Amino acid sequence: MTRFRLAVEFDGGPYMGWQRQAHGPSVQQAIEVAVHAVTGEETAVHAAGRTDAGVHGLGMVAHVDVAKDIAPFRLMEALNAKLKPQPVAILACEAVADDWHARFSCLGRSYLYRIVNRRAPLALERGRAWRIARPLDAAAMHAAAQILVGRHDFTTFRSAHCQAESPVKSLDRLSVRREGDHVLVEAGARSFLHHQVRSMVGCLALVGQGQWSAADLSAALEARDRAALGLNAPPDGLYFVDATY
Amino acid sequence: MTRFRLAVEFDGGPYMGWQRQAHGPSVQQAIEVAVHAVTGEETAVHAAGRTDAGVHGLGMVAHVDVAKDIAPFRLMEALNAKLKPQPVAILACEAVADDWHARFSCLGRSYLYRIVNRRAPLALERGRAWRIARPLDAAAMHAAAQILVGRHDFTTFRSAHCQAESPVKSLDRLSVRREGDHVLVEAGARSFLHHQVRSMVGCLALVGQGQWSAADLSAALEARDRAALGLNAPPDGLYFVDATY
Repeated sequence: MTRFRLAVEFDGGPYMGWQRQAHGPSVQQAIEVAVHAVTGEETAVHAAGRTDAGVHGLGMVAHVDVAKDIAPFRLMEALNAKLKPQPVAILACEAVADDWHARFSCLGRSYLYRIVNRRAPLALERGRAWRIARPLDAAAMHAAAQILVGRHDFTTFRSAHCQAESPVKSLDRLSVRREGDHVLVEAGARSFLHHQVRSMVGCLALVGQGQWSAADLSAALEARDRAALGLNAPPDGLYFVDATY
Repeated sequence: MTRFRLAVEFDGGPYMGWQRQAHGPSVQQAIEVAVHAVTGEETAVHAAGRTDAGVHGLGMVAHVDVAKDIAPFRLMEALNAKLKPQPVAILACEAVADDWHARFSCLGRSYLYRIVNRRAPLALERGRAWRIARPLDAAAMHAAAQILVGRHDFTTFRSAHCQAESPVKSLDRLSVRREGDHVLVEAGARSFLHHQVRSMVGCLALVGQGQWSAADLSAALEARDRAALGLNAPPDGLYFVDATY
């Protein structure tokens, strides 16, 4: 039995999310089906994080145990062949120690949130970004974002369905920058609560449009109350970038 | 009657190309149908360039004549509303002089060609880039590209269906640079022959993989013979960027 670490790119659009669901297709299931097609083995694929329906992966890290004797490069090529035509691609594959775990060994996760700040609807980036028509002040968003960095009770920014034991998390970084008509938000932490990035981005978008002040964001955080949330950003713009170990 | 200049973004994937076709949907038709829905007028939309099936637009420039009294911003908003859910968006709209013409007044056109240079298939950029698995030497591609810059007979790089009177064109710039696993080719000229950018990129890809030397590219240009073409790049990676006047 060999444990393989995978890096996975996927378009979240057609999926119910990363995790296997009874009621629709998932990225996890797509990979498990491909592993079965390659090895004949029924396996579970474990990932560094779960993603919601419509959220994308640039470099999701996962692992899978395979009994068949197969080299990492051959496994990657075979999985990619079986995954076609689904929008899921294995970018990298390597053998790791048996006790290495994509989820439990993970020391850090990073996300990117892409906003397109323009009047016109999205033609090329539909489903891949959040279009906000009103002008955003990215510098004000970045300044306000620093309020959220650090160890806090993020109850306000947590989905009602979140299964984490504690709402207290340490947010390592939350940066906002403008590149042309794109406003890019990058978030890094050991782990995140369910909907935390989308909820933070939603509130930062209110700050960027001048509807919220930095003080309003601070008050929302301190409220520790989901009802204090300003806005939850749509999944379209969210990308799981990578995981560190 | 007011002439409006439009900047258009579109995903070329679902279309037969820019130009209206009898046998399938086109971007031109989509906009003409939207103009009719807004104004009740049958109009022709003229563009700075034609694009093939699968080629995208970041800022195609076009014009349309409208009799109805409507402000540019209102027209843009109304067209975008009518274009939904098609992947065509009007980015800008302004009134111009009656003798201004999107095609005939155009002084320069620019294209971008996006290559993703990696082993894995494309999940997020499928249909939006050309995936080349073998490593590309972008510096060698850029150096060879300079052979094509200038005034030349581009017969080798011209589709058999090209309707231009002369195969002689002045290529103002052709640059190649690497950004991570992306290799980006930018081309600028007053005008291009049919398939010229795709044909130049295809041959540069051969140079980048070491299959062609710069001398091979030079010989292909000098052959003035379509049969000397090394490779025509697929439409997926090509974007009409903008037009200058």
